[in-house]
Amino acid sequence: MTSLSTAAPAPRSPVVPRLASLCQAQGLSDLSARLDRLARLVHADMGAVELALASLPKRGNVVRQSAAMLIDAGGKRLRPVCVALAARLGSGFDARARDLAVAVELVHSATLLHDDVVDLGEQRRGLPTARTVFGNASSIFAGDWLLVDALRRVQLTGLHDVLSALLDAIDEMIVAEAEQLESRGRIAADRDAWLRIVDGKTAALFRWALFAGGRAGGLDAGACGALIEYGTQLGIAFQAVDDVLDLIGDPRTTGKACLADLNEGRLTLPLIMAVEREPSVMDLLHGIVDPGTDADLADKQRLAVLAAVSRAEATQECLAFARRCTERAVQSLQSFEPGDVRDAFEAVAMATVSRRA
Amino acid sequence: MTSLSTAAPAPRSPVVPRLASLCQAQGLSDLSARLDRLARLVHADMGAVELALASLPKRGNVVRQSAAMLIDAGGKRLRPVCVALAARLGSGFDARARDLAVAVELVHSATLLHDDVVDLGEQRRGLPTARTVFGNASSIFAGDWLLVDALRRVQLTGLHDVLSALLDAIDEMIVAEAEQLESRGRIAADRDAWLRIVDGKTAALFRWALFAGGRAGGLDAGACGALIEYGTQLGIAFQAVDDVLDLIGDPRTTGKACLADLNEGRLTLPLIMAVEREPSVMDLLHGIVDPGTDADLADKQRLAVLAAVSRAEATQECLAFARRCTERAVQSLQSFEPGDVRDAFEAVAMATVSRRA
Repeated sequence: MTSLSTAAPAPRSPVVPRLASLCQAQGLSDLSARLDRLARLVHADMGAVELALASLPKRGNVVRQSAAMLIDAGGKRLRPVCVALAARLGSGFDARARDLAVAVELVHSATLLHDDVVDLGEQRRGLPTARTVFGNASSIFAGDWLLVDALRRVQLTGLHDVLSALLDAIDEMIVAEAEQLESRGRIAADRDAWLRIVDGKTAALFRWALFAGGRAGGLDAGACGALIEYGTQLGIAFQAVDDVLDLIGDPRTTGKACLADLNEGRLTLPLIMAVEREPSVMDLLHGIVDPGTDADLADKQRLAVLAAVSRAEATQECLAFARRCTERAVQSLQSFEPGDVRDAFEAVAMATVSRRA
Repeated sequence: MTSLSTAAPAPRSPVVPRLASLCQAQGLSDLSARLDRLARLVHADMGAVELALASLPKRGNVVRQSAAMLIDAGGKRLRPVCVALAARLGSGFDARARDLAVAVELVHSATLLHDDVVDLGEQRRGLPTARTVFGNASSIFAGDWLLVDALRRVQLTGLHDVLSALLDAIDEMIVAEAEQLESRGRIAADRDAWLRIVDGKTAALFRWALFAGGRAGGLDAGACGALIEYGTQLGIAFQAVDDVLDLIGDPRTTGKACLADLNEGRLTLPLIMAVEREPSVMDLLHGIVDPGTDADLADKQRLAVLAAVSRAEATQECLAFARRCTERAVQSLQSFEPGDVRDAFEAVAMATVSRRA
């Protein structure tokens, strides 16, 4: 295997700073130092990933342009970082690991392109969505294209079980999207349903990223199993924080309106927790959710929900839940030797619950 | 390899009669007899394919229901028949050939589910489209699901080059859809562009069906190459006839309104041919195409176009073109031994240009 990350001239990859800056704003200097070390560790790896992403054909037609628009807008690239770190727990980050890291970002982007059509999303990563610029049709075909491109890259690695696992993960994502679609507007404080949907919609692809990286690094089934557990817990924590940001995030940073999820008829985890503590909150939510129209929630209604969540301390409860998930994630890697890579995994877990976008 | 088609108790598969009845209406008794023999040949094969298609999970959520609605509505199953016949040119139709035949129908169905969202299609196979019953979101995810399901089936056959070829074919389909999307409303009598789009949009999947069947039957590269050429020519002929049916087809049989393609800003082959013969027809088309609105064409405008096409004898020219393609398709199989299977391929080619839906 050829290492793609021989020299690391600059101290930081072009990507990890995004994650770092989102956390530094909170003055978490310990985390900041950890993220610096993470950035140095995966600098060349992520440079190779960015180079591959930047080499996707961008011109020629609206489908390519739609895909490029989303990918070029950046993102946290958390899933490729997971692939790189998992590979580094084994024999290292090589061309196969890079291709798998690129593939996971492409699959993630494909789901966003389809989700934006499904949700009629207007903004993504602070920019207009591809569908508002190039149309729904372009966004659908762009998603199809990136999915196929990702699958081809994975197939070319020759890791057949990794390809199978990716097809399984995409299937899990679709099943979860289907359940979410059906429950839309049917407001119920159902924590099991939330977990089931999140396990498929978000955790499945993180799980695959960790497994794929582990396999590229030549790790055995036991080690891959531990990585998969890390991916599951990280994915659930990631979504729990996303749900918190839907309530308290700054729209200028998150690129999403406050309570956008509720507005689309989805009950986020803090709202579920608020209802569990104060059942009367349900009446408030019932009065608000109207998935039949696109009308934004009135500011007054938004404020009433935020006040109820605040009274129930549901944001804190949700963040505590996310932290427990990341603790379990870190715990699952105990069998690996301590060192740079395990520290980096810890930094990723901490950043995931500390991020504000 | 276990043959799945040992006994053929009933003379006809549940599927080929659809094709036969569409042609018999024209009193083509020679073709009718050929289709009878084809039906007997692939009866058990297609029974196994239908059984597999019928076993897809149908309940549980709107995504599954959307997919099932389309697949259960039937269709000509021409692509699976191609897989079966190609396998029979080799060692025969076995479980792998069946899985590939199912996969090609699933990929075809996936593209229809996405196309209906892109084109805002109301009817398909004489029934409301899944998107009108379950919504655009369900139709998008149903397409994603069937695509992934198809890829899993192909991967499980262990024929890695067949999986690569399928990913390539889907990529070709998307590139063609992108070109079609961009040219929509830009009316130009460009036969090369028509051929390029059709080669990707329609022929690519036929090509794959023939290649996949050949590989399942253990045929060598030369034999597969001949089958691929058959698939290309059949696919182009198929689309040319589809284009004719857009003009002269009975909406009760085709399930599509007259001039629906033109209405959506796509110039069909007979219209291109009419313009080539009578350039003044272009003015008429320019006055009609309005992709910005969903308004149906007025009957008067429709009649003017039909009259112009009739004067230019463009329908006849287009059907003659389709027949030349199928002749080339049949010609490409000359190196195989004469017999039942080659006769059946000939029947498929004849039926493709004789069909009226």
